[in-house]
Amino acid sequence: MASGVVGEEVRNKQVILKDYVSGFPKESDMQVINGTMKLKLQEGSHGIVVKNLYLSCDPYMRIRMTRVEGPNVITSYTPGFPLTGFGVAKVLDSGHPNFKKGDLIWGTTSWEEYSLITELEGLIKIEHTDVPLSYYTGILGAVGQLVGQFAKLMGCYVVGSAGSKEKVDLLRNKFGFDEAFNYKEETDLDGALKRYFAEGIDIYFENVGGKMLDAVLLNMRDHGRIAVCGMVSQYNLAQPEGVQNLMCLIFKRIHMDGFAFFDYYNVYPKLLDVVLPYIREGKIKYVEDIAEGLESGPAALVGLYSGHNVGKQVVLIARE
Amino acid sequence: MASGVVGEEVRNKQVILKDYVSGFPKESDMQVINGTMKLKLQEGSHGIVVKNLYLSCDPYMRIRMTRVEGPNVITSYTPGFPLTGFGVAKVLDSGHPNFKKGDLIWGTTSWEEYSLITELEGLIKIEHTDVPLSYYTGILGAVGQLVGQFAKLMGCYVVGSAGSKEKVDLLRNKFGFDEAFNYKEETDLDGALKRYFAEGIDIYFENVGGKMLDAVLLNMRDHGRIAVCGMVSQYNLAQPEGVQNLMCLIFKRIHMDGFAFFDYYNVYPKLLDVVLPYIREGKIKYVEDIAEGLESGPAALVGLYSGHNVGKQVVLIARE
Repeated sequence: MASGVVGEEVRNKQVILKDYVSGFPKESDMQVINGTMKLKLQEGSHGIVVKNLYLSCDPYMRIRMTRVEGPNVITSYTPGFPLTGFGVAKVLDSGHPNFKKGDLIWGTTSWEEYSLITELEGLIKIEHTDVPLSYYTGILGAVGQLVGQFAKLMGCYVVGSAGSKEKVDLLRNKFGFDEAFNYKEETDLDGALKRYFAEGIDIYFENVGGKMLDAVLLNMRDHGRIAVCGMVSQYNLAQPEGVQNLMCLIFKRIHMDGFAFFDYYNVYPKLLDVVLPYIREGKIKYVEDIAEGLESGPAALVGLYSGHNVGKQVVLIARE
Repeated sequence: MASGVVGEEVRNKQVILKDYVSGFPKESDMQVINGTMKLKLQEGSHGIVVKNLYLSCDPYMRIRMTRVEGPNVITSYTPGFPLTGFGVAKVLDSGHPNFKKGDLIWGTTSWEEYSLITELEGLIKIEHTDVPLSYYTGILGAVGQLVGQFAKLMGCYVVGSAGSKEKVDLLRNKFGFDEAFNYKEETDLDGALKRYFAEGIDIYFENVGGKMLDAVLLNMRDHGRIAVCGMVSQYNLAQPEGVQNLMCLIFKRIHMDGFAFFDYYNVYPKLLDVVLPYIREGKIKYVEDIAEGLESGPAALVGLYSGHNVGKQVVLIARE
């Protein structure tokens, strides 16, 4: 695993996937093992060696725990090897002109203490360190809390949906959404949406899928727009739920767009230009749920699917 | 039914809906009755009296045979009253400055020999009579045959799907599609699509829904586009089928747009400017299935849902 690197071996704790997962992931689907790693690059390498500081727990990671057949933009994890995901790391050694020792970076890394990264495309150097480093794991990932706040800043009426009273309070009181409801307490999602959107929904940010999408379709306004970012309710199902109300797309002439972060790397610096001032000025509130230590990673990741986390779930491996 | 009109009464044969329909519509869900009609407008009326010449049979009409609850862009038919739909008609009397006696019009009319039309918005005067009048019933409605031919004219590789050997031959040989297949003979739609689209589908014109949409989603290319016009496979179901593969919207960043003709009335003259020359020059082939006489209307309409028609289904009421 440490090919391409030389020098003294150090311990390299890792979170590996034991085997492909079906249904809800369990902590026991992963294992924390002690590997070893050399921290100097071989002569001629164009990669970088990094010390991982913060890891991001993201719902889509569940999809990668399933064997994905055929070509797909989402590749499966390999049993026996560490998970990969977004993280913040510090460069220890670099064979690439864009990065030098001591640089802080954000991008795809592995769930381990130290990583050799050879695919550098998509890695971004962190230039502003006046916000907590951990925030970088979430500014592209913690979309639930950010999108609603962006919408508020643009003057929208914003209603959020979450799975506990604590989170609903957070949406209303800390993030300043106009309304929020606990979808677990609503037996009739269609009725709940009608309660908050008497005149229908103009814009829906889709991160849930399944029954919520079906209820939303019934409540969209003519020419409404749906940004499809994720469908967390579906990731643990062997067969996705069927969505029945797609004829509303025609009746209401709805515009529905799937998107994924990797198409927008080029505008990431622009996003930071917008978001960092908002964060510094307190116009955007950002809430994190930080699990300490790589050992706590499996529980933190699994907790996403029962809604255990409050705020963006991050794993702290090392402070620097 | 003839309020707003005066003068001598004439017979007015009508096709009425007997009651709301569940499942596949049957001829007996409709009834041909003999009403009466006066053909002169009352003084001060701003409507028009027309003689209906051709009626259009369109799949979406099935939706209107169901009781639709709540506000909806598609309104239900009223049992005991004639069906309404697109048609070509001749103006017999007019109280509106845009129309005069003898004008030929295209737009929403009723399934009867003579109609009083008071909602004139969306009625379009037919200016060009060098193509058969019946064509006007289909140029906005017979999308299946037109869209593929437009795509060919724009240089696309076009594959059509139809429900009989005769129609598949028509798509290949008359309309010039590159390939066509009989979806009723395919036990594995995903496999069929992979056979014709080894590199995936860039653009899907959605008129089917259900299992076809699910198979298409699996075969779309990254950033593919789906124009959602109709979902004929769903109109006779009490509960629409669930579509399971919507996560492909994200994985493939698909753009999906519902649309309906009534948003585009303003560009209808432009459509005619494009299509009529194509028809005159034979660059677009247009196939009609004409049922003669209003009495044949119910069978013609019902036949749509078993795929009985070959080409655009039209009902001829009177030649002029």
